[in-house]
Amino acid sequence: MSSKESPKFVIVGGGPGGSLAANYLGKAGYEVEVYEMRADLRSSEAPGGRSINLALSHRGLSALDRVGLADPALKAAIPMPGRMIHALDGSTNFQPYGRDSSHAINSVSRAGLNQLILKAADQYESVSLHFNRKCVGVDVDAGTIELCNTETGETSTASGDIILSADGAFSVVRWAMQKRDRFDFRQDYLEHGYKELVIPAGSGASFRIEKHALHIWPRRSFMMIALPNADGSFTCTLFWPFEGEHGFDQVKSADDLMGVFRTYFPDAIEHMPNLVEDYFQNPVGSLATIRSGPWFVADKLVMLGDACHAVVPFYGQGMNAAFEDMLVLDECMKEHRPDWERAFQRYYEIRKVHVDTLADLAIRNFVEMRDHTGSSVFLFKKKVDSLLHRVFPRWYHPLYFMATFTRMPYADAVKRAKRQTWIVRAGLAIILMVLLWVLWRLVD
Amino acid sequence: MSSKESPKFVIVGGGPGGSLAANYLGKAGYEVEVYEMRADLRSSEAPGGRSINLALSHRGLSALDRVGLADPALKAAIPMPGRMIHALDGSTNFQPYGRDSSHAINSVSRAGLNQLILKAADQYESVSLHFNRKCVGVDVDAGTIELCNTETGETSTASGDIILSADGAFSVVRWAMQKRDRFDFRQDYLEHGYKELVIPAGSGASFRIEKHALHIWPRRSFMMIALPNADGSFTCTLFWPFEGEHGFDQVKSADDLMGVFRTYFPDAIEHMPNLVEDYFQNPVGSLATIRSGPWFVADKLVMLGDACHAVVPFYGQGMNAAFEDMLVLDECMKEHRPDWERAFQRYYEIRKVHVDTLADLAIRNFVEMRDHTGSSVFLFKKKVDSLLHRVFPRWYHPLYFMATFTRMPYADAVKRAKRQTWIVRAGLAIILMVLLWVLWRLVD
Repeated sequence: MSSKESPKFVIVGGGPGGSLAANYLGKAGYEVEVYEMRADLRSSEAPGGRSINLALSHRGLSALDRVGLADPALKAAIPMPGRMIHALDGSTNFQPYGRDSSHAINSVSRAGLNQLILKAADQYESVSLHFNRKCVGVDVDAGTIELCNTETGETSTASGDIILSADGAFSVVRWAMQKRDRFDFRQDYLEHGYKELVIPAGSGASFRIEKHALHIWPRRSFMMIALPNADGSFTCTLFWPFEGEHGFDQVKSADDLMGVFRTYFPDAIEHMPNLVEDYFQNPVGSLATIRSGPWFVADKLVMLGDACHAVVPFYGQGMNAAFEDMLVLDECMKEHRPDWERAFQRYYEIRKVHVDTLADLAIRNFVEMRDHTGSSVFLFKKKVDSLLHRVFPRWYHPLYFMATFTRMPYADAVKRAKRQTWIVRAGLAIILMVLLWVLWRLVD
Repeated sequence: MSSKESPKFVIVGGGPGGSLAANYLGKAGYEVEVYEMRADLRSSEAPGGRSINLALSHRGLSALDRVGLADPALKAAIPMPGRMIHALDGSTNFQPYGRDSSHAINSVSRAGLNQLILKAADQYESVSLHFNRKCVGVDVDAGTIELCNTETGETSTASGDIILSADGAFSVVRWAMQKRDRFDFRQDYLEHGYKELVIPAGSGASFRIEKHALHIWPRRSFMMIALPNADGSFTCTLFWPFEGEHGFDQVKSADDLMGVFRTYFPDAIEHMPNLVEDYFQNPVGSLATIRSGPWFVADKLVMLGDACHAVVPFYGQGMNAAFEDMLVLDECMKEHRPDWERAFQRYYEIRKVHVDTLADLAIRNFVEMRDHTGSSVFLFKKKVDSLLHRVFPRWYHPLYFMATFTRMPYADAVKRAKRQTWIVRAGLAIILMVLLWVLWRLVD
């Protein structure tokens, strides 16, 4: 191999994924330049109020931990050990995610976490961060990216030995990859869009609804969720169809909106004083699943996170999976150094099947969250699931538990969950037969 | 609706699909401007020798017929009423496609057919053709396309009420659609590539192998095919994996190549005097399936053919499906005029599921062609298929027959084929039971 022992990396994107990559590569001693389209997050005010939040869980924490960032990240997080289901009549029902409250996912501010990781990256001497630099073109073979200064409009070029694409779901690097031969790509939109709303903090920064829970208002074909923020507020997200029954296009006036909320989210209204204003001010976003491959070009380019595999948000694993990408990429690079092509190929082989599985799980969980979390059959099943998990804590792991609280690769978790279900069904069948036999003997 | 009764169309692409669209729209009296990236085909010499050929069949002919072009197209075509299978030992076996030689697909020169359709489009007063104009940008809402003159480098703009995208698998319009919200898109490459070769004409423009057949050398994981040209030559195409066993990357020298041909295509060698030269001169192409949707934007833009649904070439239906698109689009426009949005939506609803099915069929047929056409089980099944089709000509239609010789929508054809198989199996089971019963009675 003619690859360099110590290549220079150009990272496209300084979001959570790109800045975590800068930490890993900086820690390994590589020269790294990070180019981020937006302004320096660290210089803006501390995020609060309308911040966007995400669920950070075991995979993401494991990846953060390798560069010493898990504990600081958790410090600012709010643990959510379960789902709080809001029924139509306003009653609530708490469904724990694990055996006890230590099995919690963590509500974190996206901006806050991003700041933390950026600050840490900046500590490495070999890492330099550049903001307001939008990548507008990529020459993979030359190892260069074209940049546009978003403040001055000036263009410049950055070059390195390896380009690392962490530029998210609208990746410019992936765009360039699509124009190369034999790059598989797929983007599929949901018929549902989303809109963000707010439950502001109560008096004295108090939480108006349960702080330690991910709140869900499941209404079959649509739903609302809410995650707590450190300042006492909650960021709510409506997931509604774009068109048709219960669609965003059906709500044209404040009256329409209040009508829908009175019917479907009656217990939320009192906590949302700015509902009408927020609703008509905030845009409707779309939700896409992105699949692609391969995620590398020889020893010149490698991709991670949303740039190569964006998922819909319903499994709370998008950012966690991006972080885990970096963890696996790092392991592959350490194993195969300096054969970077082999390292990238191995990383792709290891990850691809699992993030494809995650994409399917995330879409499936949307149906589960909006449609089933409210049904009694589902609740019964969850209770059986929970019971088995308590009785056989080492053997029986619900699928969501494995995805969220372990690092078992996603596809392996799905296989294991299927096997568990099969064994439980076989066990039930045997117990039933034994019971029948006993009855038969008793009657004899 | 505020749509115009008589909108002006800007057609992107003057290939077979775009030029056919110009005929339909010109015939209906609409103003049409066609912009084609390449030079005017009509001014180049008559195609011959190395021309690329395609299989024109019933769907394509039906669409051509509506604008009076079916007969002229057939005049230059060579009917192929079946497949000629070349076994490893050089023996051949002819498998007819239908009940008799009237059920033939037609080998046509792509360039020749394109010329014919362009000349016909030029006859309509409201149609204007523009060549060497590469579309480099699209503003859907404004109804404008940006053009670059490929000879002078000058840029210009064309505008109309409706943009019709017929710019093929590498569509610039689709590229622009991908950047819009909620456009589903997918491109999947095969692990096989293709390379074109030639069997030149024999003495006196004679055909060195059977003229009236589509020739196949099926070799399981790879194959070669050949279609006849009017000048006595055949265009051959190798379909090999890019890498690995029997891959293009394994053939590095003339000796490697001759070794492969002597082993796998021994009967072809004597007809390919320029084999080595052709092989090392011609590039390896890749094969992608493209799926997308929706194929329209309000009453402003509509897409057809490869631009929105490219298929791999193994069902011989790519161009035929593009032509059928125009036929269906024309019907929808006539039905809903001047509600163009409704017309485009209806066209999309009608066609989408069927071209998706075609995409799957085309990939499946690759396996059938390279892997099964040589096997005796497959030959027996084909014979049973053929026999049933002869005995029940009105009821039993093999799937390939329906796709190629009828206009039954592709997905409906697949459903019907499944139903037929089910009925035949049930019939066989009943016959078997009756036979058993008779035997039982005889022995009694």
